[in-house]
Amino acid sequence: MKIVLNRKSDISLSQQIHDHIADRIRSNLLKENSPLPSIRNLAKKCNVSMMTANKAYETLEKEGLITRIQGKGTFVQKKTNKALSGLEEQSPSFNWQLTISDYLPRAQSIRFNNRHERIQLSQSTVYPGLLPNRHLEQEIKKVLSDDPQILSTYGDIKGDFQFRKELTNYLKQFKLKLAPSEVLITNGVQQGIDLVARSFIGPGDIVITEGPTYAVAIDVFRGRGATIIPIPVDEEGMKVELLSKIDKKPKLIYTIPSFQNPTGTVLSNKRRSKLLTYAQMHGAIIVEDDSLSELYFDSKPPLPLKSMDEEGHVIYLKGFSKTLSPGCRIGVVAASGTIYNRLLSAKTMADLGSPLVTQKAILSFIKSNKMKSHLQKLRITLKIRRDHVVSLLNQYAPDGVHWNTCQGGLNIWLTLPPFYHTDEIFIEANKLGLSFLPSSACYPGEPETNHMRICFSSVEDQLLEEGIILLCQLLSQYLATTANQSNIPTV
Amino acid sequence: MKIVLNRKSDISLSQQIHDHIADRIRSNLLKENSPLPSIRNLAKKCNVSMMTANKAYETLEKEGLITRIQGKGTFVQKKTNKALSGLEEQSPSFNWQLTISDYLPRAQSIRFNNRHERIQLSQSTVYPGLLPNRHLEQEIKKVLSDDPQILSTYGDIKGDFQFRKELTNYLKQFKLKLAPSEVLITNGVQQGIDLVARSFIGPGDIVITEGPTYAVAIDVFRGRGATIIPIPVDEEGMKVELLSKIDKKPKLIYTIPSFQNPTGTVLSNKRRSKLLTYAQMHGAIIVEDDSLSELYFDSKPPLPLKSMDEEGHVIYLKGFSKTLSPGCRIGVVAASGTIYNRLLSAKTMADLGSPLVTQKAILSFIKSNKMKSHLQKLRITLKIRRDHVVSLLNQYAPDGVHWNTCQGGLNIWLTLPPFYHTDEIFIEANKLGLSFLPSSACYPGEPETNHMRICFSSVEDQLLEEGIILLCQLLSQYLATTANQSNIPTV
Repeated sequence: MKIVLNRKSDISLSQQIHDHIADRIRSNLLKENSPLPSIRNLAKKCNVSMMTANKAYETLEKEGLITRIQGKGTFVQKKTNKALSGLEEQSPSFNWQLTISDYLPRAQSIRFNNRHERIQLSQSTVYPGLLPNRHLEQEIKKVLSDDPQILSTYGDIKGDFQFRKELTNYLKQFKLKLAPSEVLITNGVQQGIDLVARSFIGPGDIVITEGPTYAVAIDVFRGRGATIIPIPVDEEGMKVELLSKIDKKPKLIYTIPSFQNPTGTVLSNKRRSKLLTYAQMHGAIIVEDDSLSELYFDSKPPLPLKSMDEEGHVIYLKGFSKTLSPGCRIGVVAASGTIYNRLLSAKTMADLGSPLVTQKAILSFIKSNKMKSHLQKLRITLKIRRDHVVSLLNQYAPDGVHWNTCQGGLNIWLTLPPFYHTDEIFIEANKLGLSFLPSSACYPGEPETNHMRICFSSVEDQLLEEGIILLCQLLSQYLATTANQSNIPTV
Repeated sequence: MKIVLNRKSDISLSQQIHDHIADRIRSNLLKENSPLPSIRNLAKKCNVSMMTANKAYETLEKEGLITRIQGKGTFVQKKTNKALSGLEEQSPSFNWQLTISDYLPRAQSIRFNNRHERIQLSQSTVYPGLLPNRHLEQEIKKVLSDDPQILSTYGDIKGDFQFRKELTNYLKQFKLKLAPSEVLITNGVQQGIDLVARSFIGPGDIVITEGPTYAVAIDVFRGRGATIIPIPVDEEGMKVELLSKIDKKPKLIYTIPSFQNPTGTVLSNKRRSKLLTYAQMHGAIIVEDDSLSELYFDSKPPLPLKSMDEEGHVIYLKGFSKTLSPGCRIGVVAASGTIYNRLLSAKTMADLGSPLVTQKAILSFIKSNKMKSHLQKLRITLKIRRDHVVSLLNQYAPDGVHWNTCQGGLNIWLTLPPFYHTDEIFIEANKLGLSFLPSSACYPGEPETNHMRICFSSVEDQLLEEGIILLCQLLSQYLATTANQSNIPTV
């Protein structure tokens, strides 16, 4: 564990130490019963006074994250929570490895990825049966027969030129005017976010996000030492008017304007303009994560911020994992000027470029116009699923539970009364073979714990129905039981 | 440009500022004629005295990297060198972007990747005609016919389980005893290096490498703020006995023991043991980059360090880009204990996992035993090519030029007399459609400039012959001309 403090920040040093340790505990990077340094050593390690170090531990203790045992030391303590841990235990002979400090302050993501529950509503994915596998299979076979040498050449690090050119055509539907030299191919949108962070974010830089936001994006920005300021979300998306209250210079704004992850909201056109103006005024970068805008139900979301961007403030991210093929891992970054150049340099260091064969497959699918009819069908199917889930919730969800009726995308955001903790239901649900995403993963800093995200596209119809009914039963039980416990305020 | 100084380092602050700016200029991240901050502003930016800032500029000026014009300011100045720049110029309307600082202190790689000279001896690749494209093509087609759903599922972030299992079998030939849970699939070896750096390296951490070493690895470690200590190389590889002279605690040792990049040398068995003992004594991680060990000519190189590693000190990297398919971008990381867990967390943040289809293709090829006969053929072909290049060099190279006769791998390392600068020949060679890798890219810090790496596997036989003869002519001209110039010491 390496704690890098930003002495110029107006977040107090004790708070920074607290945040760092709390993050690692919540992420299971620090496990139950792990020893923590003494006050003296912590103070020395961080180059702060013992009073400051003590203050950090005091807060952690109050929150029930650590325990201090007289004469023995300080230890990680949390509700035993094996179900949340995605990491394997290490063998005793590797114990020297614990002396190796790392730079991974938070990794919520690992708690919720690669889960194998029977009814998996946790990951925001599209059920394979809804994706055009057979068509893509044909495209790949054709591509390989035509030119098997794509297996034996390093492609252009930027991505295949023909593919980038076709993407500029594809993105015209969003009124984006791009040259192929402004497009960079990545391994999914995730790598796009990561390249931006490694290029432009370092210790103490201010990153603004929606709160809640995409869990792994938080991990990435936190991993670069950013100070993340979350802006609350209402039915029109990020409450952009609150930006004026931030008294620090923002370096980067990460936003998911259309069918926001996890809340499903859409940023209104007016707020999009305001957000862009804000970035221009402050010389900030906007990262626009636009993975889902094709998946609207009734009407298209407003045009991307990038379509209004004259001066190269917006780095636009588009992926094909949700709409077409997660297995191909293809994402797109659109950016201009020196920002593009620097992202290209980062991509070089990250992996020297993405595989050619999967690029060619998607190129060929997009070009063939099959994309259009595939998306039409997918939108209809997803809307039927959303309607079904909403009607099940209406029928089975207990009083006090609310949800958004999203207008597109793959997820519904459920809200319990305050003070409830969806991590607790998560553990029960896992025992019954059901998973969802607890809101604790979606906030930088202190999380709201009374929400959950459920994906309505990830499993077969029948399992979805079974899952929602089961979840409602669990919610009813949980609300009934915990309402009787005196330690939790009731509402 | 963001200059992060390490105030605990015993490298002086002025030297750190110098190194940072010099790196950016050499990498073309700072271009000819770019304005640099005034002494006053530089001092303020770095929080150092004006004397310290001035000292950094003085050194840069002496080296001819910057120029100071009375009343105008300080500017980047270097030999106009457009041929070396891989980056595009930005349009004037994006000029605000220049105010955005980044964290890319060095990007030599971008100067030499994606080059399109007719005779491309710069990148260390294998000519497509020497790789089993048709076989791999068949494997991919079969995999897709059997299970087209691999296109529509996110795989395990660690990599496909069957593939990881098969890899543990493949790696048994190197006496590696691994469980599938100790294997992580990456996008080529490059991503393996990058995951290690982002997990374990931060500002001021000591990284030991061979000097010279793989250019993009330097970029990655420098990008994390490492202090890199290069250890010279002789015919038995890294001069391990020099490690005892390092008086700082090393965090990580990056080594390419077999057919080292760029020198082609092989680390002797004795030195391998010593290096591992050194890492154990100092609680350091070894990153063993073993991309080329299958490509020996007469006898196998010694077993990997990982085969002797009982306590999980070695992170072992193997790739299939050189031996099988660069287009698939498949690399392998083998590690144990919490080091593995932390790398997995980093992989999650980087891209949520590699594409499934390319993993399945290589799995199926390795399993089919075609790998063995393919490698046998490839070794023979490469040896013939090496012999041919060596005989051409014997015939055409001017006096004063030396080279290693590598025992495996893809590259020959050429050495000119000291004080010559292969960057200068590079520019001339490019004009004639020929490229190689100048040694200036391969050193952390002050580079030796009188070497070059030529790859003998990247082009067709005829082009290779043409290229080597052309290169020898250029070398003869260059040595003859510059020997007459009074400003360069002659030898």
